[in-house]
Amino acid sequence: MHRAVCPGSFDPVTYGHLDIVGRAARLFDQVTVAVLVNESKSGLFTVPERIDMLSQAVADLDNVEVVSFRGLLVDFCKEHDIAVIVKGLRAVSDFDHELQMAQMNSSLAAVETVFVPTSPQWSFLASSLVKEVARLGGDVGDLVPSYVVDRLKQRLAE
Amino acid sequence: MHRAVCPGSFDPVTYGHLDIVGRAARLFDQVTVAVLVNESKSGLFTVPERIDMLSQAVADLDNVEVVSFRGLLVDFCKEHDIAVIVKGLRAVSDFDHELQMAQMNSSLAAVETVFVPTSPQWSFLASSLVKEVARLGGDVGDLVPSYVVDRLKQRLAE
Amino acid sequence: MHRAVCPGSFDPVTYGHLDIVGRAARLFDQVTVAVLVNESKSGLFTVPERIDMLSQAVADLDNVEVVSFRGLLVDFCKEHDIAVIVKGLRAVSDFDHELQMAQMNSSLAAVETVFVPTSPQWSFLASSLVKEVARLGGDVGDLVPSYVVDRLKQRLAE
Amino acid sequence: MHRAVCPGSFDPVTYGHLDIVGRAARLFDQVTVAVLVNESKSGLFTVPERIDMLSQAVADLDNVEVVSFRGLLVDFCKEHDIAVIVKGLRAVSDFDHELQMAQMNSSLAAVETVFVPTSPQWSFLASSLVKEVARLGGDVGDLVPSYVVDRLKQRLAE
Amino acid sequence: MHRAVCPGSFDPVTYGHLDIVGRAARLFDQVTVAVLVNESKSGLFTVPERIDMLSQAVADLDNVEVVSFRGLLVDFCKEHDIAVIVKGLRAVSDFDHELQMAQMNSSLAAVETVFVPTSPQWSFLASSLVKEVARLGGDVGDLVPSYVVDRLKQRLAE
Amino acid sequence: MHRAVCPGSFDPVTYGHLDIVGRAARLFDQVTVAVLVNESKSGLFTVPERIDMLSQAVADLDNVEVVSFRGLLVDFCKEHDIAVIVKGLRAVSDFDHELQMAQMNSSLAAVETVFVPTSPQWSFLASSLVKEVARLGGDVGDLVPSYVVDRLKQRLAE
Repeated sequence: MHRAVCPGSFDPVTYGHLDIVGRAARLFDQVTVAVLVNESKSGLFTVPERIDMLSQAVADLDNVEVVSFRGLLVDFCKEHDIAVIVKGLRAVSDFDHELQMAQMNSSLAAVETVFVPTSPQWSFLASSLVKEVARLGGDVGDLVPSYVVDRLKQRLAE
Repeated sequence: MHRAVCPGSFDPVTYGHLDIVGRAARLFDQVTVAVLVNESKSGLFTVPERIDMLSQAVADLDNVEVVSFRGLLVDFCKEHDIAVIVKGLRAVSDFDHELQMAQMNSSLAAVETVFVPTSPQWSFLASSLVKEVARLGGDVGDLVPSYVVDRLKQRLAE
Repeated sequence: MHRAVCPGSFDPVTYGHLDIVGRAARLFDQVTVAVLVNESKSGLFTVPERIDMLSQAVADLDNVEVVSFRGLLVDFCKEHDIAVIVKGLRAVSDFDHELQMAQMNSSLAAVETVFVPTSPQWSFLASSLVKEVARLGGDVGDLVPSYVVDRLKQRLAE
Repeated sequence: MHRAVCPGSFDPVTYGHLDIVGRAARLFDQVTVAVLVNESKSGLFTVPERIDMLSQAVADLDNVEVVSFRGLLVDFCKEHDIAVIVKGLRAVSDFDHELQMAQMNSSLAAVETVFVPTSPQWSFLASSLVKEVARLGGDVGDLVPSYVVDRLKQRLAE
Repeated sequence: MHRAVCPGSFDPVTYGHLDIVGRAARLFDQVTVAVLVNESKSGLFTVPERIDMLSQAVADLDNVEVVSFRGLLVDFCKEHDIAVIVKGLRAVSDFDHELQMAQMNSSLAAVETVFVPTSPQWSFLASSLVKEVARLGGDVGDLVPSYVVDRLKQRLAE
Repeated sequence: MHRAVCPGSFDPVTYGHLDIVGRAARLFDQVTVAVLVNESKSGLFTVPERIDMLSQAVADLDNVEVVSFRGLLVDFCKEHDIAVIVKGLRAVSDFDHELQMAQMNSSLAAVETVFVPTSPQWSFLASSLVKEVARLGGDVGDLVPSYVVDRLKQRLAE
């Protein structure tokens, strides 16, 4: 049984994230989507809100669960018997930083990292860009699920 | 008639910016230099000050105007009947981020982005670097017009 | 009047090339697609065959013509009063090489180069890859026009 | 049951290859190391010789088999019920080319590609470099298994 | 007599830094490790603390001294008769930024920059990553000297 | 006494090469320009012709000598008591390949590699590009010394 984790902030989930989670779910037996709790940086959405949107988004994937975690990702992996971290790769600037993280994690514990190329159609997509476009009144309906569009509108109107 | 926009912060304008604006002015019929108003981030110079320095710098280019804008760049383009965004490309790290923005803009509206390579002699130039050097007492007279040098000295002495 | 050139080998034309030519045709008044005659390297198709396929592909673009050229691209530009070279950018490895060519051309003559980002959906596409896949029996019907598929089958069966 | 393939030329196998194959064997249930038969390019070693060295190198990995293949990799995957291609990533220049191949393969068939970062200590290693060093009399004993060192000496002395 | 400088924040020193300083000490007659005093950004350790740890780390290198500096690096070089800046290169994203700094410095004064590739085993190492791992309770004993581990524990417990 | 080597094909020498050799001559006590004899690949110029042009080009640099070498560069370094290899870095694609070579050389022997950034004005320059432009009748007088221009004309007319 091979368990994988898809870690991230998911503030909020985009179709780019779902593309990667869907691929991970086809490649490994069990996939945990883990929302990083970062105490020093508050997001647009709370962690429970992010988990809520994610759970709705992966509802049709039987072998995927959504949880939050704090602390070192490699410690989380050891506790949950997870052998592999799955990350999406969009561009070269991702690559350098992700490789650095992968090698650090591999030096800290026997946890592998695999990179999955994002579908070309989502290669430009990032949560930060979605929030910026939404904030400036742009239409993000092609980039995130409809219930995320609604929550973005609601939150940005507060 | 092909209209182009050169968007940016221009805080302050450098010879690198002017290199790109000059090329755009030779390639397109009308060029709008658009200074982004970013409410969440104050610059060293106010937007009117930046527009003032830019206007002086492009005074000899007949088909170039300088304006400010807020909101989404693609909305600005649609309102002003602009079909193309012109960006300078200095280095690979520019490329990744700029490509992401270009693809996002192209997904939001029918606006093209073209990249113009910066002259090798300005390939290292950035407003942030100019400000840092000026702040530490370095001579930036080869990097920005003389009236920008004066304004930098004045502002940093305040 | 702004004239542009899209140079290349086009051996054979792909949907990636057509994406770039179509964008150039919207950005400039007149576009010349120029097939490089390379005497030291024979292609899968002859230059007239490539021009034939290209001409069919751009038939609906009023301001585009297809020609061959030999010699230096900057000399071709000067002879035809062309002020700008348009190149597609797919990936970082393109970027380095294309930037080198752009700077060389700019040092040889007053000819600008602009880079147009390829649509994400064609970002992996290259004539050499199309030929390799076709040679190994793969279906390239989503990557090139149908008459190019037919010519590929015919040529590879010879 | 998740089956993976590690494709390549393996001319000859290096510790860098074995690093990737070992990781794949921990991540997937069954791993096929597939030596590409390239009729238009002869290697230093024949395909049977390469398979022979590889088989010796992976003898202690229970879920790994070594075979040759010709034709399209995605066709090989479909015939052998393999859902994922595993590639090592050493550097940025690898990344661009590999991403292009991954997206082409994904457009041709429902086959995923995952990238596994090479251990830093092998990040500079390539079969071509090993052959060049061996040819010039350098010691490659730290880069390939001892029986590969012997075969290299033998072959280069012929 | 060739003098070199290794500039940086060193907050705190890692084995990656020491790898570069050691190489510089073999290549040049005299090496100055210069800790940048950045008034607008406070570190985890004070500048005297960083100098203290660095001095301990380079105690066995006869031709290396550790100092602090403020202002422009090129001014520091001129004052101390230093002709070359030595920087480590880990990855491509380093490269772009470092090249920009090198060209800016070379435009400001006749000071050369040379880049030394970091040992593969430290290619993922950065002070910021070490601090983050230590903060989350990870073991950084393989990444920094033991007295740095102690100081990190002490400081993060405050 | 620190000795350095600038290895390469130099077929023929360009102002880009001379930029790097000149910097090396300021940074190290003694610099050897080493022309690689590659038996499997003939150049446009013979090795003695390349050495002849190089010698003329570095005649005014007292601490620079020009020689040819065959075999492994690290063996050449050990024989000549050279501790450091100096390479120019123009672009990211250089970086990856050069880093690979540097790490291979460092694994084979205790020889360091340092990278020197090429002046922006020569960042697009390569011998292969110079030869291609000259072959097509372009003017390369700004890119190589005048006696190299003459030799290129002569050789290409043969």
